[in-house]
Amino acid sequence: MANEKLCNASCPIARSLGRVGDGWSMLILRDCLSGLTRFDEFQRSCNIASNILSSRLKNLVKNGFLEKVCYSTSPLRYEYHPTELTNSFRPILIAFAEWGSHHFSPEGKQIQLVERKTRKPVTPILVDKETGKELTIEDYEMIIGPAAAPDVQYRFQYLAKKKTHGTTDKFLPLL
Amino acid sequence: MANEKLCNASCPIARSLGRVGDGWSMLILRDCLSGLTRFDEFQRSCNIASNILSSRLKNLVKNGFLEKVCYSTSPLRYEYHPTELTNSFRPILIAFAEWGSHHFSPEGKQIQLVERKTRKPVTPILVDKETGKELTIEDYEMIIGPAAAPDVQYRFQYLAKKKTHGTTDKFLPLL
Repeated sequence: MANEKLCNASCPIARSLGRVGDGWSMLILRDCLSGLTRFDEFQRSCNIASNILSSRLKNLVKNGFLEKVCYSTSPLRYEYHPTELTNSFRPILIAFAEWGSHHFSPEGKQIQLVERKTRKPVTPILVDKETGKELTIEDYEMIIGPAAAPDVQYRFQYLAKKKTHGTTDKFLPLL
Repeated sequence: MANEKLCNASCPIARSLGRVGDGWSMLILRDCLSGLTRFDEFQRSCNIASNILSSRLKNLVKNGFLEKVCYSTSPLRYEYHPTELTNSFRPILIAFAEWGSHHFSPEGKQIQLVERKTRKPVTPILVDKETGKELTIEDYEMIIGPAAAPDVQYRFQYLAKKKTHGTTDKFLPLL
């Protein structure tokens, strides 16, 4: 994964994936948010090679997702705590859990989101915060934002043209 | 990314990431859902090497995300159309776009979700489908589901114990 390149792309999805867009990193964030904190816990939970785990943890600390906290001075030992940035990633993991349960769990739900107070199972959906309306493809679309870079503007112009006339020109975004 | 291993894990997040959990695959799905269809469009849009793109497209077709459609017989040419499975992935991409815009786009929004009819900008949030309440960490939690495998049950027991007593035992899930 070309990390730096994606982090510096215009698209916010690419910028996100440049930071956490390999599966291991997201599984580590899943573990941290569920309450695991230590290297050996992550290693067994993710069933991941220790050199890969080391590099992912280092990267997650560097990018502000995890805080490395000393919990023993003799021997010197560290654990990893999720930051606010990782807390804000929780909705994406909930969406992945829901999507995975729906499509790839023919045996039924392995895990279930519930309301703490009532223990009632919850079906998560994405809505417009203001109106509460579900964000269906029929009623909502992505357009260029106020800070759109030239390559984003070009992309949307190309897509509009392709939708109307089919593919005629080459797609040649400024990179 | 240990694709097969993750696809067969108990956790639905892992099963999802086993299928799309490398950044390139998710960027290709982003492109397909926005209206791009062809190899050269994906290649330029993602700025991705053609051998990597080939392998990712093959994998996405094999896993039911893309349909390979012939659009020219002489010369023989194919394009890629998103399936229903990919359409159902859209909320996750919207969540990534929102998260990325919020945290990694200091210049402002490059892209913006709007209501088609009114062109009003939308802030997406995840809610309980039934009650419309936002899924905050304070009020909602993940618990074991009705089909939880032994390793998922062990995991939640361990986490409950760790939360109450701190780390004492080794975390040794059945793998």
